Amino acid sequence: MSLQPDNNLPNGGPFSDPERAAVYRAIFERRDVRRNFLRAPIADAALSRILTAAHHAGSVGFMQPWDFVVVREEATKRTVKQLFQESNAQAAVHYEGVRATLYRSLKLEGIEEAPINICVTCSRQRGGRHVLGRSTVRDTDIYSTCCAIQNLWLAARAEGIGVGWVSILDHGALKRVLGIPRPVKVLAYLCLGYVSDFATQPELETAGWRARIPVEQLIHHESWGNKAVFTSDGQPNGKGS
Amino acid sequence: MSLQPDNNLPNGGPFSDPERAAVYRAIFERRDVRRNFLRAPIADAALSRILTAAHHAGSVGFMQPWDFVVVREEATKRTVKQLFQESNAQAAVHYEGVRATLYRSLKLEGIEEAPINICVTCSRQRGGRHVLGRSTVRDTDIYSTCCAIQNLWLAARAEGIGVGWVSILDHGALKRVLGIPRPVKVLAYLCLGYVSDFATQPELETAGWRARIPVEQLIHHESWGNKAVFTSDGQPNGKGS
Repeated sequence: MSLQPDNNLPNGGPFSDPERAAVYRAIFERRDVRRNFLRAPIADAALSRILTAAHHAGSVGFMQPWDFVVVREEATKRTVKQLFQESNAQAAVHYEGVRATLYRSLKLEGIEEAPINICVTCSRQRGGRHVLGRSTVRDTDIYSTCCAIQNLWLAARAEGIGVGWVSILDHGALKRVLGIPRPVKVLAYLCLGYVSDFATQPELETAGWRARIPVEQLIHHESWGNKAVFTSDGQPNGKGS
Repeated sequence: MSLQPDNNLPNGGPFSDPERAAVYRAIFERRDVRRNFLRAPIADAALSRILTAAHHAGSVGFMQPWDFVVVREEATKRTVKQLFQESNAQAAVHYEGVRATLYRSLKLEGIEEAPINICVTCSRQRGGRHVLGRSTVRDTDIYSTCCAIQNLWLAARAEGIGVGWVSILDHGALKRVLGIPRPVKVLAYLCLGYVSDFATQPELETAGWRARIPVEQLIHHESWGNKAVFTSDGQPNGKGS
């Protein structure tokens, strides 16, 4: 597998059925992983492939606003873990009774267990004052960076590497820990490590925290509220009803 | 290919080399497509697969905040195209001289040429007042929706369907056109259609608007500014320098 995809120009043609199935497999088997990381280190070549995949997301005005801070040192992870614990203690007070018990039983991060942590940022001033395509919706640079994160997540799944997104962190404090300059925005703190297998469904679904919404409830035809039901053969049924 | 991935539970195991290569192929060959859409309609089954792929992104607190408004009617596309033209006229004044000429030569949308347009939204109040994992960073619902968009984009590539993200649109006006309620946020307006082939590099790179940044310039080790150069065998060289 080449580190530099540009050396092997893509052919741009159709995907075979097995190729298409592999893409869907990565999408459906990607999980937010917080436990059971293996101790095996992530090979630099695999990390390079994953970050190169992230870097090949589209971006508004080809701005490429992302950066990746790769953390391996135990001391740094320990400090970030403390930031999580502080924020999580504040978050836990929002729940009461059974829900509070369930909340406290959930494992919401794997910062210290994961061999590599990656902080993904968005440099909002990259590309100058006027970025093509960004004048109307200023946050499109953030959206682009999230697309890069999803590329990273799917590439990692294909490599057998689990990724967990720690969202319960004070980003201001995290920036001070990692030396990230003030104008640069933190978007994600990710924990990466090989796992022996991936869960068949999201942990919050398994834990009974929330159910998956049937996709047809989220599809509107022509205008908001105009729902259609897709039948088993993929035909919309009741479109316009 | 099953419409309902949950009927074929994923196996969770490792990817074969061809499967892994297919995932990278989708990532590296995904393009922001604005031209050369074929007239062939998108089969409902393919559309269902793509939207189901989007729906299988991870989301903060398993919130699943996204909705998809699927637009096929010419009259609606024409109205949205007018919104684009108004916003683009405002955007074009930021450029002067050669850059202005180049800007005006770029094709920035394929709203009317694409058989299907999809508006992707984020329902920020879905899941109630306290969404697990969202108390510290409130915009994580937006980040989740962007991850869903990237799933959609990659699944579409595997289906031979090009996707173009139109970012030059007044989202307030777009919401009125599509009847989207006030609390729901528009994130993306996408144009989808089959294409005979995908360009080998981003159009803005081909047009000389901006170059791709070498990925090693975007990777920091342990803390911001601590760059490493990956050599051709994927080994970091000069880490800590």
